[in-house]
Amino acid sequence: MSRIPTALEAAKRIADGSLTCEALTRACLDRIADREPEVQAWQHLDPDAALAAARRIDRSGRGPLKGLPVGVKDIIDTADMPTGYGSPLYDGFRPPRDAACVALARQAGALVLGKTVSTEFAYFQPGKTRNPHDAGRTPGGSSSGSAAAVADGMVPLAFGTQTAGSVIRPASYCGCVGYKPTFGLIDRTGVRPFADSLDTVGVFAATVEDAAFFASVLTGRPTLRIGDEPFRPRIGLCRTHEWEAAGRAARDALDEAARRLRAAGIEVREVALPERWRGLFEAQKTVMAYEGVRACAPEMLTAPDRLSAKLREILEAGAAVAPEHYDAARAVAADGRAGFGDALGALDVLLAPSAPGEAPEGLGATGDPVFNRVWTLLGASCVTVPGLYGPAGLPVGVQVVGRPGDDRRTLAAAAAVARALSAG
Amino acid sequence: MSRIPTALEAAKRIADGSLTCEALTRACLDRIADREPEVQAWQHLDPDAALAAARRIDRSGRGPLKGLPVGVKDIIDTADMPTGYGSPLYDGFRPPRDAACVALARQAGALVLGKTVSTEFAYFQPGKTRNPHDAGRTPGGSSSGSAAAVADGMVPLAFGTQTAGSVIRPASYCGCVGYKPTFGLIDRTGVRPFADSLDTVGVFAATVEDAAFFASVLTGRPTLRIGDEPFRPRIGLCRTHEWEAAGRAARDALDEAARRLRAAGIEVREVALPERWRGLFEAQKTVMAYEGVRACAPEMLTAPDRLSAKLREILEAGAAVAPEHYDAARAVAADGRAGFGDALGALDVLLAPSAPGEAPEGLGATGDPVFNRVWTLLGASCVTVPGLYGPAGLPVGVQVVGRPGDDRRTLAAAAAVARALSAG
Repeated sequence: MSRIPTALEAAKRIADGSLTCEALTRACLDRIADREPEVQAWQHLDPDAALAAARRIDRSGRGPLKGLPVGVKDIIDTADMPTGYGSPLYDGFRPPRDAACVALARQAGALVLGKTVSTEFAYFQPGKTRNPHDAGRTPGGSSSGSAAAVADGMVPLAFGTQTAGSVIRPASYCGCVGYKPTFGLIDRTGVRPFADSLDTVGVFAATVEDAAFFASVLTGRPTLRIGDEPFRPRIGLCRTHEWEAAGRAARDALDEAARRLRAAGIEVREVALPERWRGLFEAQKTVMAYEGVRACAPEMLTAPDRLSAKLREILEAGAAVAPEHYDAARAVAADGRAGFGDALGALDVLLAPSAPGEAPEGLGATGDPVFNRVWTLLGASCVTVPGLYGPAGLPVGVQVVGRPGDDRRTLAAAAAVARALSAG
Repeated sequence: MSRIPTALEAAKRIADGSLTCEALTRACLDRIADREPEVQAWQHLDPDAALAAARRIDRSGRGPLKGLPVGVKDIIDTADMPTGYGSPLYDGFRPPRDAACVALARQAGALVLGKTVSTEFAYFQPGKTRNPHDAGRTPGGSSSGSAAAVADGMVPLAFGTQTAGSVIRPASYCGCVGYKPTFGLIDRTGVRPFADSLDTVGVFAATVEDAAFFASVLTGRPTLRIGDEPFRPRIGLCRTHEWEAAGRAARDALDEAARRLRAAGIEVREVALPERWRGLFEAQKTVMAYEGVRACAPEMLTAPDRLSAKLREILEAGAAVAPEHYDAARAVAADGRAGFGDALGALDVLLAPSAPGEAPEGLGATGDPVFNRVWTLLGASCVTVPGLYGPAGLPVGVQVVGRPGDDRRTLAAAAAVARALSAG
């Protein structure tokens, strides 16, 4: 589907002079001109300003991301573009400064191509974006536009955020790589908060290597870069405590991934999660609702009527959560995090569903983060790898889950999974 | 020094109709008119607007904080007042919405009286505020204006934030109660970040009971309210691993507090912290520098020349911290948090210095957070209690430190300490 080069290819060609940022930006804009009427991934895009910025970068830009166009989810502040947080309350808002992650990308030479559609405050009320594979289906959310734009080949890299399943799920539905790093790995300054102990900045890319490259530059962690070194991860096939939510497509994808991995000589064995992890799923919902109602207190106070019914619903639920109940949920989470190493044992990573199946039909909802909540609560490093398809011909990702702080291994394992999937 | 009632007294009198918000606000404004030329606690104050808001609250306000004037540190967003983050870069900036903690206070009926002076981005470059006891001395920082305003009786309650020692230290220097809750207890949405894993919203008040009352309303945790119930905490006298930084005044204050506590029949016994906690102090500095350079990336990218030399210094230090070094510091912190319960054993709280002594002379620096860094890194609940004085006649607080999440006990112990100190 992609007509633009991968981020790593583009970076190499820009460095050796065989590609300009302007030409790459033009290729992105051409693809967008062609596809945006159907996909609707962009909340703000100014082609002339983007080309002018590209020429400036060609003249004087530098850094490892020099010339690479990046999409920025519209709950992430940009000083030179409006930032609407997916809510009519912030239509046309101009933050005084970029978010830290945007500044870090620009510092490394990247071009901010435009703002991508987010659900309302990165919760569940959808924006306008459609699945690039089927305009009648959701792209997932909340990072709807970033997932769709990268999967559709409109831009090589994009920022998203995940509080429940807002990076992994849309990447799975749209068919690109989504990487939710360990909690806190990428600085959140200037990102609209929803739940302080869960919100995590993540990235979208066409390949695992691109996602790893982008994150390595943003974090100043060269060890995150994945090269060609052979790595045969020990993988635990993890049907999770939420397995009953997995549809046929998700079950088949996991089995097929295991088959191809074994065919590639990679060890995959069934693993059961600790019984007491059953509580993590509900704990994530409790934490998210409780923290969300506090983060949204300003809007609830001044303009409750301009919030969607879906958002008001979780805020009312959050207001009803007793602090003791929240504290108990946080304790369950802390216990889970402390036991993560033991749960994995000698395994490098787990392989689990990214989502319940193909993207659901309809645009009124963004699908279910049922296979993401627990990992987000645990602060785990997660990568969804595309390459498999469901009965309707839509992408179905598989999720590689690693220990918090073990992002290098998780990314390397995800790259191995991607190689095995593409080997068929 | 205070000529205005405590928050609890005022709330009671406003509820029973014997005091209006307008009269209380006028009393605050009178005190400010008298003292502000010397103290310089306020970054933004509009007396007419405050009185108009007070009349609105008298007419139609409600909630447990009804009519209580609150000062808001100027790194905390307010929709109806400029928010300058202590930096010339944000002169006159108007955020689109209140911070969550401000909205929660307003929701409960409070009046935002004005914005109080903060150091630059809540780091060490001082604002204009002077110590209310001696205009030639620092009020401490970074919550300089909030501490000075509350200690000087200009306002009964104020918000601050702490990343190293920005609540406890200025409260100790100015002579009021400062309460830094457990990390995360009060939502941070709309508070300018400096170090994501450390930044904590705290409060200032004239009494421990007022601070506990304010926090109980903000968090919806009625258990935080401290009543008259007798409580004899088991207290560990903790000279900390940084004891050599304590001057005569701090040492004497701690001894005197122990003497008065024992005279009140409260058990105080010497306690030594675990040897391996020696690394926590440097770990906090590492974490703060590393996270700070990322949070300030937008300003470093666009306007490095408009940052103070002091701020640039830590940002340069942060840029030089290797990720592995930061990860190791975070691991030291996690180990400390996990061992906090064991370190306290059967003790309810620790009693430690709040600051190295009386407020230092001069206005070019805000003093040393040497006795705060470790507790902030551990996410502990901390209260500084006034009542003792040093050789120059300036206040010297003592710090009550409790386990993370154990705020009720910490506040109750602090109230017991305050009673013992005032009993002499």
